[in-house]
Amino acid sequence: MAARKASRESAEDRLIARHFRPLATHPGALGLVDDAAVVAVPAGHELVLKTDGVIAGVHFFPDDPPETVARKALRINLSDLAGKGARPLGFLMSIALTREVLDGWLKRFTAALGADAKKFGCPLLGGDTDRTPGRVTVTIAAFGTVPRGTMVRRAGARAGDSVVVTGTIGDAALGVILRRDPAAAKRWGLDRKMRAHLERRYLVPEPRNALAEALRRSANGGMDISDGLAGDLAKMCRASRVDAAIDIARVPLSRAARAALAAEPALIETILTGGDDYEVLASVPARRLAALRKAGKAAGVAVTEIGRFARGTGRARFLDAQGRAQKFARPSWSHF
Amino acid sequence: MAARKASRESAEDRLIARHFRPLATHPGALGLVDDAAVVAVPAGHELVLKTDGVIAGVHFFPDDPPETVARKALRINLSDLAGKGARPLGFLMSIALTREVLDGWLKRFTAALGADAKKFGCPLLGGDTDRTPGRVTVTIAAFGTVPRGTMVRRAGARAGDSVVVTGTIGDAALGVILRRDPAAAKRWGLDRKMRAHLERRYLVPEPRNALAEALRRSANGGMDISDGLAGDLAKMCRASRVDAAIDIARVPLSRAARAALAAEPALIETILTGGDDYEVLASVPARRLAALRKAGKAAGVAVTEIGRFARGTGRARFLDAQGRAQKFARPSWSHF
Repeated sequence: MAARKASRESAEDRLIARHFRPLATHPGALGLVDDAAVVAVPAGHELVLKTDGVIAGVHFFPDDPPETVARKALRINLSDLAGKGARPLGFLMSIALTREVLDGWLKRFTAALGADAKKFGCPLLGGDTDRTPGRVTVTIAAFGTVPRGTMVRRAGARAGDSVVVTGTIGDAALGVILRRDPAAAKRWGLDRKMRAHLERRYLVPEPRNALAEALRRSANGGMDISDGLAGDLAKMCRASRVDAAIDIARVPLSRAARAALAAEPALIETILTGGDDYEVLASVPARRLAALRKAGKAAGVAVTEIGRFARGTGRARFLDAQGRAQKFARPSWSHF
Repeated sequence: MAARKASRESAEDRLIARHFRPLATHPGALGLVDDAAVVAVPAGHELVLKTDGVIAGVHFFPDDPPETVARKALRINLSDLAGKGARPLGFLMSIALTREVLDGWLKRFTAALGADAKKFGCPLLGGDTDRTPGRVTVTIAAFGTVPRGTMVRRAGARAGDSVVVTGTIGDAALGVILRRDPAAAKRWGLDRKMRAHLERRYLVPEPRNALAEALRRSANGGMDISDGLAGDLAKMCRASRVDAAIDIARVPLSRAARAALAAEPALIETILTGGDDYEVLASVPARRLAALRKAGKAAGVAVTEIGRFARGTGRARFLDAQGRAQKFARPSWSHF
């Protein structure tokens, strides 16, 4: 149903050769000149598979720089591999482009994607390129490996374990507000640097793949935080059939988030439920907490205990300074 | 950026539980309650990976039945696995839905998808569900396995081998014309059955997975035909650095395609370049042709020799009854 043009190699072939082939560094990608990729999984290992996509106007703003769109598309998948303790193996990408997307956009997009693929050791294995009359959509399926039977499960949290998070929580959700309402920066008393930090955290996640191996050794359960800490912790509690109690005061916040919260205390709900954190949430027994902290230190990533899992029926509670459970109007991100 | 609703389980969780969980029969799918799937690849085997998507208004008509959209989305990927000689292992699906897509549509979509997943032994391993302000988009990444080093390559065609195709060519391309211009049926003198055949071939591909193992044993090179026989054969010739000469008269046509071609001889270009065939194109040495034919017979799929590969520079020629090479105005499908 799309236009066709006469040539020996199609425009699609040329586009793939120009923009995507340079990223296909894995021998199993076959230079993107076959219909499929072929990869070996190391002996004694299993394959971990994940797919997640981003759509213009839903997961990113149509005028976001192509570099950050590319990084976000790959990194949200890498973050899941990190949360599962998996080592990246490679990815497939399906990209639907609109007529407005020009060669220059794609050049910047693939340059950034290639840099991230290299940085995280996750090469492009294959893909699919289409024109769409709808919205620019980038769908990535990412693959990793774990030694057999060691994938960190969402259902693995255990009563008595510490609830642990990496990095800081809520920055990206505040970054989205700033992106829509730049005046909020003044209201929250943010300096230029704090504002840039929050916006950056929304635009470019920092997946914690450097901690994947330590997580596999230390955590009984884990997942990445993408739909908000409150909602994702609730999912983990339900899957693991445990309760969790969190001290809100212990949830790690960036300097910028602390400033915004001081100016507008109601932002605590945005911070805890807003999503797009791409940090790791884990259930870690006390005896292994030090090892995970040490790995965090080596990687330059904070590892913070924010509460405890307990026997229960799958409820997560967030407690304020007075020990009262906070109620959230909208506990988790949902597209429906 | 999407609407959020207050509930213990999000609407997205409920939608996944209702519609997609029943398809996640593989233990590694973890009932879709984890962030990733985990699968083992059998010892001595490699993983074959492919992604392809369908977009409303590009790859299917927005009013196509949800059952055929589901089947087509999965089968175009299964067809690639067939062409590579791979045995299906499972798939990931990313689906972007519009507000117009109601629960009833999704119920029919997933029922048909589940039936095909069972039929082809290719279970859902995981996925991602979003709302889009654009077009309904279904992106599937499918995985298969082959004994190490045996994936059938596009670059494997050899001079002296027969050019072989499965099934019949051109039906789907004629089916698209009928879909747009129902009056063509009369012009081409098609009866009701012939018309239904062509439309069906466009709506629901019949991937040749039943021949995958025989193909792996018999073919030096292979791929599925999705962008038209002429274009895909040209790709195979370029990748393999051989030429090919095809006797147009030997290209297998259905009764319906023969009728249409008799009425309108210019349709030969549509038949040979139109795309959406989802048959297999293979390079088979003479001594192994009988074995592949036998496997085809067992599976009820025609296996037809249509020409020969020869030393050369990567050119595919289609010869008419007088031995003259046919020129095509638009040799291959391209989205750009």
